[in-house]
Amino acid sequence: MEIFETVAEIRNTVKKWKKNGLTVGLVPTMGYLHEGHASLVKESVRNNDKTVVSVFVNPAQFGPGEDLASYPRDFGRDKAMLEALGADAVFHPSADEIYGGNPLTKVYVEEMSSVLCGKTRPVHFGGVAAVVSKLFNIISPDKAYFGLKDYQQFRIICKMARDLNFDIEIIGMPIVRDKDGLALSSRNVYLKPEEREAALSLNKSLGIAEKMAENGERSAAKIINAVKSAIEAYAAAKIDYVNIVDPENLKDIDTLTGPSALMLAVYVGNARLIDNRIIGS
Amino acid sequence: MEIFETVAEIRNTVKKWKKNGLTVGLVPTMGYLHEGHASLVKESVRNNDKTVVSVFVNPAQFGPGEDLASYPRDFGRDKAMLEALGADAVFHPSADEIYGGNPLTKVYVEEMSSVLCGKTRPVHFGGVAAVVSKLFNIISPDKAYFGLKDYQQFRIICKMARDLNFDIEIIGMPIVRDKDGLALSSRNVYLKPEEREAALSLNKSLGIAEKMAENGERSAAKIINAVKSAIEAYAAAKIDYVNIVDPENLKDIDTLTGPSALMLAVYVGNARLIDNRIIGS
Repeated sequence: MEIFETVAEIRNTVKKWKKNGLTVGLVPTMGYLHEGHASLVKESVRNNDKTVVSVFVNPAQFGPGEDLASYPRDFGRDKAMLEALGADAVFHPSADEIYGGNPLTKVYVEEMSSVLCGKTRPVHFGGVAAVVSKLFNIISPDKAYFGLKDYQQFRIICKMARDLNFDIEIIGMPIVRDKDGLALSSRNVYLKPEEREAALSLNKSLGIAEKMAENGERSAAKIINAVKSAIEAYAAAKIDYVNIVDPENLKDIDTLTGPSALMLAVYVGNARLIDNRIIGS
Repeated sequence: MEIFETVAEIRNTVKKWKKNGLTVGLVPTMGYLHEGHASLVKESVRNNDKTVVSVFVNPAQFGPGEDLASYPRDFGRDKAMLEALGADAVFHPSADEIYGGNPLTKVYVEEMSSVLCGKTRPVHFGGVAAVVSKLFNIISPDKAYFGLKDYQQFRIICKMARDLNFDIEIIGMPIVRDKDGLALSSRNVYLKPEEREAALSLNKSLGIAEKMAENGERSAAKIINAVKSAIEAYAAAKIDYVNIVDPENLKDIDTLTGPSALMLAVYVGNARLIDNRIIGS
C-alpha cells in the first residue's frame, strides 16, 4: 500500500492503473477509521482491481464554532487498518494541497443541502460537494463508496454526480453499529461513559418508529412524536431534528405511502450524533 | 464525422478512443459557427487525435429577457463546416438530455462571476460553469478550447478547472475579426447594416487604448475615459461597461504595472457586443 500526499502523484498512479485496464474504487474519509469505514473499504476491494482511500479532514465542511480543531485524528492507526484491509493507495493531502491558490468555485446542491443537518450546518454540504467533486476529478474512480449513516450526504452526492454527469457509480453501504446499537462514528469518541445510554436513544427510537410503521401507522407526525418522546426521556439528549422525508429528494412527508427516511440528529454532551432508518417499506 | 445526441453514446465513443490511447480535444460551442469557432476546431484537430465539438444552446446561461429564443441556429451549416474542418464527433444534445431530472447542483466561481458581464447577466456564468463541468465530465477531454473574445468566461473556466482539479488543459485562442475589425460573434447577425460603424467603435477604441499604453500612459481612468469617448461618438452605441482589470482575477486596477485586460461591453441596436484586449504588456 502506498501513501500519496500530492494530487500529481496519486493521479499518475491511478492513470497507470487505468492504462492497464484496471478498475478503481474510491473511499473518501476524514480518517479516524472505524468498522463503518472498514465495510466500505472491504466492499471496494471486493469489487474493484484497485482501491484508493482518501484521508482528509476537510476544513471546508466545518462551520465556524464546529469541531475542526478537535476532530479526532490518528493517521498511524488508519494506515495500519487500511493496509490490513487490502487498500492499494491512501491519498493523504495537506489542506494546502487541496485548497491552495485561493479557490473561488462553489459546488452546491440546492434544496437538499439546506434541510435537516443543513439547517444547523449551513456551510457543511457545500464543503462536502466541493471536496467530493475534487476527489472525483483527482482519482476518476469507477465506483465511490459512502456510508448510509450520513444519509443526507449520500443523497446529495448521488444528486451532484447525476447533475454534473460524473461517470462514477455511487454506492451507499449500510450503517455499522456497535453491539449495543450505537451507529459507528468517529465523533463517538466525544461521548463520556455516562452519556452512552442517552446516545443509544437514537437507535432505540428508530426501532420504535420502524415497529409503528410495520404495524400500519402512516402518520409521520405520530411517528415523529413517539421518536421525540423516546429520546427526550434522556436528560442528556437534546434533539436537533427528527424528520421523516422522501428518501430521494429529502423533502418532508406527512403520510407514509412507501419507503420513507426517518432522519435524526441529537446532541449528547459534546457529540452531535446522527442516525437514520428507512421505514415503511 | 459522427453526430451524437445522447450522453451515453458520445461517452461510449470517447471511451473507445481513450482505450486505444488516443487523445481528445473538446470545443464547446453554442453553434451558428463562424471563423472564430473554426480556429478552435483547427487547433484541436492539429493537437489531438480526436476532436469533439459540442453544439448546444445552453438555456442555463441565458437570463430572463435575454435572447435564448432568438439566438441564431443553423445546425445544417454547422455540421458541414465541422465536417470540412476535420472534427471527429459532434455532440448535439437536447436541453432535456442535459437538464432532465430536475437538476439542483450549482457550480459558481465567486468574485469573478459577478463583475463585468456578470453585473448585467447575474445568472450567466453560473450557467456556463455548470454546463462546462458537465461537458468536461461527459467527454473527459485532454484539452478544451475556448475563444478569448469571451475573456471573462475563459478566465472563469480556467479558475473552475483548477479549483475542482479537472485534469484538462484549458486553451484560449486569439480573437478572430472580420476584415473591418469587428470581433466575430454569432450575435453579430443581430446588427443592421447601418449599425456596423457603431459596432466597429469597440475595436477602434481598443486600438486607441493600446496606443496610449504603448506611449506610457499608466492611469486606467485616463485610458477608460478615452475609450468611452471613442465609443460614445456613435449615437447607436450604448456602453454597458468599460473596465481595466487584472487579467487573471478580473479585479479592477487603477494603475497599469503589467499586462492588463481592457474589457468592454456595448449595446448596438439589438446586439450586446463584447470585446477585449491585453494592453500594457
